[in-house]
Amino acid sequence: MTWFEALFCPRSLAIVGSVAEGKIGRVLLDQVLSGGFADVVVVNPKAEGTDAAPAVRSLAQRPTDGPPPDLVVVASPAATVAGALEDAGRAGARVAVILSAGFSESGNSAEEQALLRVARRFGLRLVGPNCAGIVNTKHRLFPTLETRPPAGEVAFVSQSGALGGAVLSWAEEQGVGLSKFVSYGNGVDLTEADFLDALREDGETRVVALYVETVSDGRRFLDVASRLAAAKPLVVIKSGRSEPGRRAALSHTGSIAGADAVFDAALRQCGAIRVEGIEEMFDLCRAFTMLPPLAGRRLAIVTNSGGPGVLAADRAAACRLDVPPPSAPLRQRLAERLPPFCALNNPFDLTVQGTGAAFRDVLIDVLTEYNVALAIHVNTPYLDAAPPAQAVVDAARATGKPIAASFLAGRPARAALPILRQGGVPNFATGERAVHVLALMGERYNARERRSRPPGRPADGPSSPQPLPWDGAPLEPEVMDWLDELGLPVIERRWARTADEAADAARAFDAPVAMKVVSPEILHKTDVGGVLLDVDGADAAAAAFERLRIVTAGRSFRGALVAPMAHGAIEVLVGVLRDAQFGPVIACGLGGIYTEALADIALRVAPIDPVQAQGMLSELRSAAILQGMRAQRAQDVDALVKLVASVSSLPLRFPQIGELDLNPVFLTDRGVRIGDARLIPAPIPDNA
Amino acid sequence: MTWFEALFCPRSLAIVGSVAEGKIGRVLLDQVLSGGFADVVVVNPKAEGTDAAPAVRSLAQRPTDGPPPDLVVVASPAATVAGALEDAGRAGARVAVILSAGFSESGNSAEEQALLRVARRFGLRLVGPNCAGIVNTKHRLFPTLETRPPAGEVAFVSQSGALGGAVLSWAEEQGVGLSKFVSYGNGVDLTEADFLDALREDGETRVVALYVETVSDGRRFLDVASRLAAAKPLVVIKSGRSEPGRRAALSHTGSIAGADAVFDAALRQCGAIRVEGIEEMFDLCRAFTMLPPLAGRRLAIVTNSGGPGVLAADRAAACRLDVPPPSAPLRQRLAERLPPFCALNNPFDLTVQGTGAAFRDVLIDVLTEYNVALAIHVNTPYLDAAPPAQAVVDAARATGKPIAASFLAGRPARAALPILRQGGVPNFATGERAVHVLALMGERYNARERRSRPPGRPADGPSSPQPLPWDGAPLEPEVMDWLDELGLPVIERRWARTADEAADAARAFDAPVAMKVVSPEILHKTDVGGVLLDVDGADAAAAAFERLRIVTAGRSFRGALVAPMAHGAIEVLVGVLRDAQFGPVIACGLGGIYTEALADIALRVAPIDPVQAQGMLSELRSAAILQGMRAQRAQDVDALVKLVASVSSLPLRFPQIGELDLNPVFLTDRGVRIGDARLIPAPIPDNA
Repeated sequence: MTWFEALFCPRSLAIVGSVAEGKIGRVLLDQVLSGGFADVVVVNPKAEGTDAAPAVRSLAQRPTDGPPPDLVVVASPAATVAGALEDAGRAGARVAVILSAGFSESGNSAEEQALLRVARRFGLRLVGPNCAGIVNTKHRLFPTLETRPPAGEVAFVSQSGALGGAVLSWAEEQGVGLSKFVSYGNGVDLTEADFLDALREDGETRVVALYVETVSDGRRFLDVASRLAAAKPLVVIKSGRSEPGRRAALSHTGSIAGADAVFDAALRQCGAIRVEGIEEMFDLCRAFTMLPPLAGRRLAIVTNSGGPGVLAADRAAACRLDVPPPSAPLRQRLAERLPPFCALNNPFDLTVQGTGAAFRDVLIDVLTEYNVALAIHVNTPYLDAAPPAQAVVDAARATGKPIAASFLAGRPARAALPILRQGGVPNFATGERAVHVLALMGERYNARERRSRPPGRPADGPSSPQPLPWDGAPLEPEVMDWLDELGLPVIERRWARTADEAADAARAFDAPVAMKVVSPEILHKTDVGGVLLDVDGADAAAAAFERLRIVTAGRSFRGALVAPMAHGAIEVLVGVLRDAQFGPVIACGLGGIYTEALADIALRVAPIDPVQAQGMLSELRSAAILQGMRAQRAQDVDALVKLVASVSSLPLRFPQIGELDLNPVFLTDRGVRIGDARLIPAPIPDNA
Repeated sequence: MTWFEALFCPRSLAIVGSVAEGKIGRVLLDQVLSGGFADVVVVNPKAEGTDAAPAVRSLAQRPTDGPPPDLVVVASPAATVAGALEDAGRAGARVAVILSAGFSESGNSAEEQALLRVARRFGLRLVGPNCAGIVNTKHRLFPTLETRPPAGEVAFVSQSGALGGAVLSWAEEQGVGLSKFVSYGNGVDLTEADFLDALREDGETRVVALYVETVSDGRRFLDVASRLAAAKPLVVIKSGRSEPGRRAALSHTGSIAGADAVFDAALRQCGAIRVEGIEEMFDLCRAFTMLPPLAGRRLAIVTNSGGPGVLAADRAAACRLDVPPPSAPLRQRLAERLPPFCALNNPFDLTVQGTGAAFRDVLIDVLTEYNVALAIHVNTPYLDAAPPAQAVVDAARATGKPIAASFLAGRPARAALPILRQGGVPNFATGERAVHVLALMGERYNARERRSRPPGRPADGPSSPQPLPWDGAPLEPEVMDWLDELGLPVIERRWARTADEAADAARAFDAPVAMKVVSPEILHKTDVGGVLLDVDGADAAAAAFERLRIVTAGRSFRGALVAPMAHGAIEVLVGVLRDAQFGPVIACGLGGIYTEALADIALRVAPIDPVQAQGMLSELRSAAILQGMRAQRAQDVDALVKLVASVSSLPLRFPQIGELDLNPVFLTDRGVRIGDARLIPAPIPDNA
């Protein structure tokens, strides 16, 4: 018996805590018994039980003829929990669910770690503390204080107990049934990754929903979530976009890529679908459990009313579903059957014909060439909503393709709802909401990139970590030399330590040059006037060198980097940062002045391969610029893709890299060249 | 008696059409009578009425002792409508509402225009045809086929009949009461602008909601909507983002600024609030009718549960509401009263203290320094939801400030709902939805720009229109000369007709030059290699001239524009286009390769003044780039603002301007210079 089986399908169960009227233990006991689970023993110091459940002082005193309590649910005061676990461990329990609060969430981490030590001694696994319990509807097991949800095929895993409770309360109203529910609270032992891993092979769960604020081990989460998402839909609410742990804005890369953006990228990387709130989560879970998969993004909108059809089409365009017109033959077929006032351009607006048989037939017909249909029906008090609802159900059965419905609105549409529900067609409050959900479903089936390799694993296996060649933080010219030695493309340049050397460099390049101050104390060179452009000739270079000396204003001055001007190139940023949860992350976007102003940066947990780098570039708003839009010759995007993939492996080869900021990287039709580079060592050597 | 009074408060009413069982006229009659409106006469060829309503063959036969039927509701076949209007006009009716279909919506525009001619003869105003009728809840008047909505203070004006009907059906469920409803269908006479104008001074209406697909006269709509929005909130659903009438992509400006983007800008310009769907409309109308105005964007979130509080805070950040921490004194006051496990950083998470008195007191306290509060309460089956609901109501009364609520979820929260409703506190399904609505409310009170002048009116009154100095389309150098003469800043340049002239120009400028082909047949010069940069010296210029001749490839070659290179400037686009509904529109955004790739263009109906131009620039995603972010010297944004305002008046001074595309405009710290200019004359002279 695994911990997962012991947790959700225990043979017997113990509740630790007082079961006096009004106590939490009593509520738990009532919930468990009234759910239909009978084999319960109560544990408390006075051995006070109820008529329905015997009580013991400790599990050691339990009569030995029954099976051991696989699952122990603890609701006693914080100070007594460690003792209860010891007792449970000795008695052979497998899992303890600890509802008791008063641990790390109120600053008491030491006591929480003590629980873990006790549990480890006995091989006991822990859920909680400070959690809201668990539910297994199929097993009729409800050790929780929350509302009992209807049975279904969605498993819900929640870090927050209160939010979990709200979801349980709301499930019935939202028409979503649950298979399993677990709130893991402080997560001292079992956490989201453990549950996601186990739910992958849970035959009673078709869709997994997760509410999470932080994860304890980003790489493990990525691994487990990827494998789960490959098997069944994974819907995630990740709260805390305004992350308090956001890194100080040390550099361009760091200031843009807060931890939430990394989490967002990681979720996309592993194929999970992120939603922003509870309603959206319910809508999506309902659609995933009721509808067959979308095989593409071509949506047909069939309606009896123009306005709502247009609103749905607008929303579809906004979330990148296609609403193309029908082929000529399909249009012809429809036109033969329908009167001329029906609009057949998609949305298909049947107006007064949008009832019963015609509604069904048009849905069946359009699904011969569309991947998915939305049936919108506006009902009036003088029209029976049942026949069009039955028509939608019949069309869904006849075609086996996904059809969502939006029957509007209120009382006149009410007759449609049970017909749709029983017929397996999800109904949404508005066509806009339905379209949004279909688009999210479509995301799951549109991610070739993800299939190229498990995310965050090097293509050629782990390589042995190497040290950086410097002690402390290197200067930009040193970083550029090092990148050059590693075989990465870097611009031609000279590091001038004197005005004479600057003049020599300008002479050697025989072209206008850019000159940048080199100083360990100047982070943003442009801000202090430390970047001089179009410096033309040796004398001008010598003079510029002296100007750069002046701008350092008493700070350490280590000369100037001199390089030929790079007119006409597109400036790109390629960067590496280290996320507290996910480790090394690769970033790419427009560089120079555009980096911060547009905040248009794509991220991936590193390393990535070129296929993934390509996908990363294509999700930038500025993707068209990188492709060299409308220029005669396309930019050499392949070279950029190769550079991004190569840079993404550096933080794994060199774990001392804390942050690496290549900005600008010059992109032209002839390749890429790194124009500047800054490296910040990791505070502590890291073997990720 | 105005037409508006005759429409919504008629002394007596006539229904034209059959009132036999099952006929539309019968439904109308039943609705009107059961609503409580008694003075009804029925008109049809056989003079067939019912027990409750007398019938006549024509209104001429009506007994002359009663008042004339101010309002005539027509539901007879299309072919009979003109006659019915004639009859109504003669009898002294003031307004006719025509439900009958079969006019311009099915291609029969001639018959529709005939109705208008009849009506004009008698000073009769028309609503419809092809409409869903009207409602005045205060007058108990329901001549419509749709559900009777609850009474309230929201007026709903709908172009779509079906969508209007859906809104009426849904109003009760959504907790929104209506004052008036009108569906105007094809809008042959009275349209959205007439209703908005009249509703401005309607004492029974506090909020106006509008569903519209197109407007007949954009300038009038802008004028009327601005004045209405200054008096009361105007909430608009404008559908058709994927506008079929979108202009062909003739130029940069034209291809980005589709008609929907212009509509969107016009709505912001006049202070209306655009929403994307019906649920959002209901949410916002409910908030506007229940809450006092927001005086600012500082939001306090008070909750009994962490997770939902964080989700709401995340959404607030996404829609630009501020969720700042409390001041030290407020924090101190709260800390003295609450136990240490309460989180007091905003969200204020009271956990188990979030019930009754503490909930109320914290709300009252935080509203001493926040503009608005959101009270989130997660209820469990074992907690009574009534006391916290009463606490929220009490806090709203005590402070007089806006408080929205989100009591979660389903059955355990149900006891709270009537308390909140009766206490005037709007409750939302999730905290995220509440936050979204509060942010939209905040928009109304955060638009200084709008108050600078009525939109779309020249600052110095209308000036007499002048002709353009060319017949047909001018070449770029001609447009630049003309702009120069008008006093606008244009770069130094020469128009070389020969290679020798190009060499002369390069010598005269004594610096590397840019050279661009001049040809009436080449629209996108870069695409054909018609732009050569960094041409250095006279010989190079002569050679470049010959290269430009070659790229014209048989098309008309009219020489080259030669100008010094403008390194280091930011490239901006300033454009004018003409919208089918709103006339001249001014556009501004990043220029050069960024224009299309980023689609980051701000629009306003022209003309605008500098205050409005400033607001326009600040709404660009790239605003920070224009401000010269992080450069030592700020860019001369004032000069750009002045240029945008000046250009915006050009299409009114020169009505022959169809499209004007200044791209790039070079922005530096020393001013702006127009670097290239294309002008496309309007197809037909226009006196807008």
